[in-house]
Amino acid sequence: MEEISRMNIIEQLHIDFAKELSEVNKLILSNLECDEELIGEIGNYLVKSGGKRIRPLLTILSSKLFNYDGTAHINLAAATEFIHAATLLHDDVVDSSLLRRFKPTVNSLWGNQAAILVGDYLFSQAFRMMVSADSMESLRTLSNASATIARGEVTQLAHIKSRKFLTQEEYFQTIEAKTSELFASSCKVGAIVANAIDNEAESIYEYGKNVGLIFQIQDDLLDYFSNSSKMGKNIGDDFYEGKITLPIIELQKQASDNDKKIIESIFVVREERTEIELGLIIELLNKYNIQKEINLVVEDLAKKAQSNLDKISSKNTKIKSYLEELIQFASSRES
Amino acid sequence: MEEISRMNIIEQLHIDFAKELSEVNKLILSNLECDEELIGEIGNYLVKSGGKRIRPLLTILSSKLFNYDGTAHINLAAATEFIHAATLLHDDVVDSSLLRRFKPTVNSLWGNQAAILVGDYLFSQAFRMMVSADSMESLRTLSNASATIARGEVTQLAHIKSRKFLTQEEYFQTIEAKTSELFASSCKVGAIVANAIDNEAESIYEYGKNVGLIFQIQDDLLDYFSNSSKMGKNIGDDFYEGKITLPIIELQKQASDNDKKIIESIFVVREERTEIELGLIIELLNKYNIQKEINLVVEDLAKKAQSNLDKISSKNTKIKSYLEELIQFASSRES
Repeated sequence: MEEISRMNIIEQLHIDFAKELSEVNKLILSNLECDEELIGEIGNYLVKSGGKRIRPLLTILSSKLFNYDGTAHINLAAATEFIHAATLLHDDVVDSSLLRRFKPTVNSLWGNQAAILVGDYLFSQAFRMMVSADSMESLRTLSNASATIARGEVTQLAHIKSRKFLTQEEYFQTIEAKTSELFASSCKVGAIVANAIDNEAESIYEYGKNVGLIFQIQDDLLDYFSNSSKMGKNIGDDFYEGKITLPIIELQKQASDNDKKIIESIFVVREERTEIELGLIIELLNKYNIQKEINLVVEDLAKKAQSNLDKISSKNTKIKSYLEELIQFASSRES
Repeated sequence: MEEISRMNIIEQLHIDFAKELSEVNKLILSNLECDEELIGEIGNYLVKSGGKRIRPLLTILSSKLFNYDGTAHINLAAATEFIHAATLLHDDVVDSSLLRRFKPTVNSLWGNQAAILVGDYLFSQAFRMMVSADSMESLRTLSNASATIARGEVTQLAHIKSRKFLTQEEYFQTIEAKTSELFASSCKVGAIVANAIDNEAESIYEYGKNVGLIFQIQDDLLDYFSNSSKMGKNIGDDFYEGKITLPIIELQKQASDNDKKIIESIFVVREERTEIELGLIIELLNKYNIQKEINLVVEDLAKKAQSNLDKISSKNTKIKSYLEELIQFASSRES
């Protein structure tokens, strides 16, 4: 039951905003048209690989929440998706990932060089689309966001290289930068083009930030409790890279002294991790009921996101309820 | 003698525009300040590695040519350097280069992952600086430029992978995109902030384009006729990658049927190239006096650059003569 309703909100949005999304897609495709075949080829592969288009949807929803009726939100929505796509391309090179959304990654098919350079191209095109939207404030927001994302990715890399156990604070700083910031900014630029008043633009930004945190925390949990048939990527990707994510931080808090030593040895001492060790960690996550702990964190963030929405006086109750449902969707996602 | 005068124009500019360049450097450093140590570390390494700062100088000179007396040109000058630095970081990963400007590359010291992500950070910061300059037209120009650079890099990669012999036209298209466009745009944004009239902004853009072409052609020639003590990078880098550059295209035009076969076999048939083959190619380049052919191409471009300048009615003869000297500097650079 739950899963059906969860699928429905994204599906529902794709139906209700079919016109806007089709314009976003058209703009995405036209920005991939290029006399350089390799860009077109890889771009089309990315577009066809799909994805939920959550960031463009956030921009569209936010602009509608503040009663926008112009067309600049389409450019900004497409720009957020391009920034996201560029980040994924580089991320997959950095992580040597082979699978994303059920499909081989660009780096695995065309090589790292192409993935790096096409990522740069998408990133540049994102800024060109923002310029077309002709909003300096949106450009400020999204250029800040992309600097923050890059900083977050560097921090994550530094953490992995330092091979130390992250604190919960360090974990949150990292995911705020690498994931939440773009969710938040996608919301904010919708508010900006709609000329929302400052504190309401700030509230929708905070809403996006909290939804982004929930999204990333669930993603990190799914690395241990999903399978690639639902998730579209391999289970244990984070684990094998030695990424310290919230489930592991919570586990380390709850574990007995003996189990703590095992966990530390697997994540901090070892250079590489095995499938058997992954099984062991999953066993420990179950033993200490870490999913429940994570759910508490997520519930808390969901409440915050709701209170961010409550601060916005918009009369547009339909849009508001979509944004509320998105909190639920993020909180209970299984893929 | 020639070398002394060549050094002098860049040195002269570094003296005459010391105040502006020091502001550009300050801005660069402040945009590298970051709570993420790795970014600061790599950023400082890049700044200390120096470079001629040609692009910021072009922005400054161009703004002065059109009598600009504001401060926005500093942001734009720093932005062009950041775009350039980001491009170099990714370029060196893509080419697996180990040496640049006499120093080990970032990828060789910190690894590809760090070079990719810090490149993304610099790129994002470039856009933040442009937003600070508050000129939508400059943002349009530089976002177009970075898309064009990325496209040029992809084209170059596609050419290398296709292992076909480039035509002169394909070569020029590639270097126009990957090098000239940023020279041209660095000039143009100087004209834009100075409110130059459209056709003069276009002329300084074309000037930059031609200087950029000369610069890249000389760079490609230096890959065969320099040594790393002058050039700061390894001789034969392009050769070992199998890059078809103008010297090789000209050589193939001039060569006897028998020599043509040898050249084609080395560049197109072989997967890898040896030091002996590099020696052979240099011998052939000498045999057919290819340096002279290249000089003719360069002279022609220098004339075009001069005529671009001649179209600008600026009374600022000192700045104009600097820009003229830069044409000569690019035309006869040895490093």
